[in-house]
Amino acid sequence: MKRFGIIGFGRFGQLAARHLRDHFDVVVCDAHDPVEDAGRIGVRTGSLAEIAGCDTVMLAVPVQALEQMLAEIAPHVRPGALVVDVASVKMLPARWMAEALPESVDIVATHPLFGPQSARRGLEGQPLVICPVRGEAHHRVAEFGRTLGLKVSITTPEEHDREMAYVQALTHLIGRTLVNIRIPDEELKTDSYQHLLELCALIGDDSEELFFAIQNLNPFAQEITQQFIGQANGLLDRSLKAGNRSAPARN
Amino acid sequence: MKRFGIIGFGRFGQLAARHLRDHFDVVVCDAHDPVEDAGRIGVRTGSLAEIAGCDTVMLAVPVQALEQMLAEIAPHVRPGALVVDVASVKMLPARWMAEALPESVDIVATHPLFGPQSARRGLEGQPLVICPVRGEAHHRVAEFGRTLGLKVSITTPEEHDREMAYVQALTHLIGRTLVNIRIPDEELKTDSYQHLLELCALIGDDSEELFFAIQNLNPFAQEITQQFIGQANGLLDRSLKAGNRSAPARN
Repeated sequence: MKRFGIIGFGRFGQLAARHLRDHFDVVVCDAHDPVEDAGRIGVRTGSLAEIAGCDTVMLAVPVQALEQMLAEIAPHVRPGALVVDVASVKMLPARWMAEALPESVDIVATHPLFGPQSARRGLEGQPLVICPVRGEAHHRVAEFGRTLGLKVSITTPEEHDREMAYVQALTHLIGRTLVNIRIPDEELKTDSYQHLLELCALIGDDSEELFFAIQNLNPFAQEITQQFIGQANGLLDRSLKAGNRSAPARN
Repeated sequence: MKRFGIIGFGRFGQLAARHLRDHFDVVVCDAHDPVEDAGRIGVRTGSLAEIAGCDTVMLAVPVQALEQMLAEIAPHVRPGALVVDVASVKMLPARWMAEALPESVDIVATHPLFGPQSARRGLEGQPLVICPVRGEAHHRVAEFGRTLGLKVSITTPEEHDREMAYVQALTHLIGRTLVNIRIPDEELKTDSYQHLLELCALIGDDSEELFFAIQNLNPFAQEITQQFIGQANGLLDRSLKAGNRSAPARN
């Protein structure tokens, strides 16, 4: 059985281990001691050097820690190994991996567009984005993703980040804001409001680290989120002016 | 068959006529000539005076035109008649109706929390809010609503407007802004983003007049929408600062 190393054993690393343990000899490590969680999930722990030497190495650390981690594993990766990341942005990680890892290593940048919450009923139909970076291993990553039931898309890091400026940066800005102001589950509600409540349920457990990564490390994010805020302010301004015309004077 | 007059034959007036024509002798009028639409739906048109003299009078004009319309119909309403409005805010319309209409008329303020889009597959389970204003007719309005399959809630105009500051003012601000910036239906999308796309589909056809009414004529709306914008700006600020700490210097 091929050895599959997972570096970073947070929410996504643990989800990955659960789905990979039947297909690989999975070994995990984390900045925090992952022994208890690994035992519960049924995979073993190892040293960073051991995991970096696996046939496949998955980097599931926060994207903010990725560049430093690449420097640490680079001396240990084996020729012919495959290194994949799972970060929510793709242009920077793809460049970091290509620069840090030896030419003898295959590199595939991926973004699993799901987490423990959206995949709570299984992986079937969940989206996996694959960006080829070096070598031909993206073909077998895509094939394996499809055997897990994932909806696989192959694209470039730039196209990924452009789409994610809407799908993630804007969506998480709205969702996180709604979570923070604690919108109530009103008795009198509409289908429209129900969509906002469900958005809160889906992203409410995501980490602040992930939020910052989605906003800061996607070069297209800021333009879209600023456009949203600007348009919302403009709408409220126009609304106020219309109100001054049509609302009765005594209000 | 009792005569049911509908004043205002826009999106909601037409929806109401379709569902009421089997239960009442429905007569409609509008500021614009409604003859063609009425014929298509199978109800007849009448003068404002005739409609104001019906057993039940539904005011389905834009809320901005409601106070003026009440002044016009007040001389024509019959003792013992029932007048209902269907505006998206309730405190101001309830007060306007109580002030403008003779004591001999029963008054019920209602808010059907649905429209042609959300009720496209029928009325079953759609919410109807009822606020008693004068007399006991709210009991039979509630009963009739339930026979149509509606989920009926009885509350005060103030409690209604408090909840609608979230359910409508905030939801429509987000939805209308997303429609205006034309968020794309991306190939790479998540369940979270799908909720935003569905929100756009639900409210995309609503009129600007309705949007302004929801924002301006609900006394609690502005506080909630401003809280949302303020929190979103705060999140982006904190994000930017976190990014300056953790993103690599060369970006």
